[in-house]
Amino acid sequence: MAGTASSCQFVYMELLERRIKQSGTVIGTNILKVDSFLNHQLDIALLCELGRDVYHHYQNCAVNKILTIEASGIAYACMTAQFFDCNVVFAKKKGAANQSADVYTANVHSFTHGNDNVIAVDRRYLKAGDRVLIMDDFLAHGEAIRGLMALVAQSGATLVGAAVAVEKGFQGGGDSLRQEGLEVYSQAIVDKMSESEIVFRPNK
Amino acid sequence: MAGTASSCQFVYMELLERRIKQSGTVIGTNILKVDSFLNHQLDIALLCELGRDVYHHYQNCAVNKILTIEASGIAYACMTAQFFDCNVVFAKKKGAANQSADVYTANVHSFTHGNDNVIAVDRRYLKAGDRVLIMDDFLAHGEAIRGLMALVAQSGATLVGAAVAVEKGFQGGGDSLRQEGLEVYSQAIVDKMSESEIVFRPNK
Repeated sequence: MAGTASSCQFVYMELLERRIKQSGTVIGTNILKVDSFLNHQLDIALLCELGRDVYHHYQNCAVNKILTIEASGIAYACMTAQFFDCNVVFAKKKGAANQSADVYTANVHSFTHGNDNVIAVDRRYLKAGDRVLIMDDFLAHGEAIRGLMALVAQSGATLVGAAVAVEKGFQGGGDSLRQEGLEVYSQAIVDKMSESEIVFRPNK
Repeated sequence: MAGTASSCQFVYMELLERRIKQSGTVIGTNILKVDSFLNHQLDIALLCELGRDVYHHYQNCAVNKILTIEASGIAYACMTAQFFDCNVVFAKKKGAANQSADVYTANVHSFTHGNDNVIAVDRRYLKAGDRVLIMDDFLAHGEAIRGLMALVAQSGATLVGAAVAVEKGFQGGGDSLRQEGLEVYSQAIVDKMSESEIVFRPNK
């Protein structure tokens, strides 16, 4: 159960929406480039504010571990983990299914690249008794989040919810996950976009 | 020119050395696994202390950008960037040479995997006028650092130096770079290791 939204959260959410409008670039109908601040160049001050806001949302959930996926989820997860005073584990992408007794693995389909990746986490770093928050910079079809959920399920840990910076609402992954009962906190939800306009979901 | 070493630095360096002795695992003669705190599970509190120490070392160098490489350099770079109040840029690994007018690229040979990777940074995020600190979690033969140096050189930015958490001194990369004039600040230098013993370089 997440904490109640405070007025602070809306300020932070607006901060990210403003930044997306100012610095994001829409290419075609599906690609939103935010690599000037979120996933190539990293605006550390912004990520810190986003992390603080994620903490406010989940602060009453006894989170003791944040699980993300390499590479672009790492910065966002680390800046947030400071507020929870907890460790981060990032799932590694493997080229092929490298099954081993020592790791949990899951398949993640990439709609962008049209291929499948196997992601893996060492069993020592995810355990029954952990209370896990999943984080990623982007949520589109939800495949990465589903892969991370599968790792958590294998470990027997408790999944508290997910936090993402930018959800592409029009691709449906976030709403499907919510319908299935997952708490998904997205800091900006793009419901419609074109090269001339980005429309955010109000009252998230 | 780096700041003068303070007594604090020795405390931080000992902190990392102790952690390596306590939680690191040596496999064969070349592999030092520290994935319980540095590059799979991330001990955020430790990384924060390491970042503070890197800041103390380079605080008088007017660093305005930290350049690292995906994936395991990102956490270390981000935690450090908070002290410098600057952005991070991480070079992306590409499977093949994907030359483009928009990116700087360099080849990085991996002795571990026996292959070459092309790394790339968007030209918009590294510019003449920037004062760049290169960071990475590990320094062995120095190939990744050399690749990042090549990107900085192409951009016309000023390279201030490099900071790494763990240098495998016996593989020679760090000392070669120092002989060529690069300021390399390593927070722990392993001069000798076996499954029963890890020997650190004194008086770094």
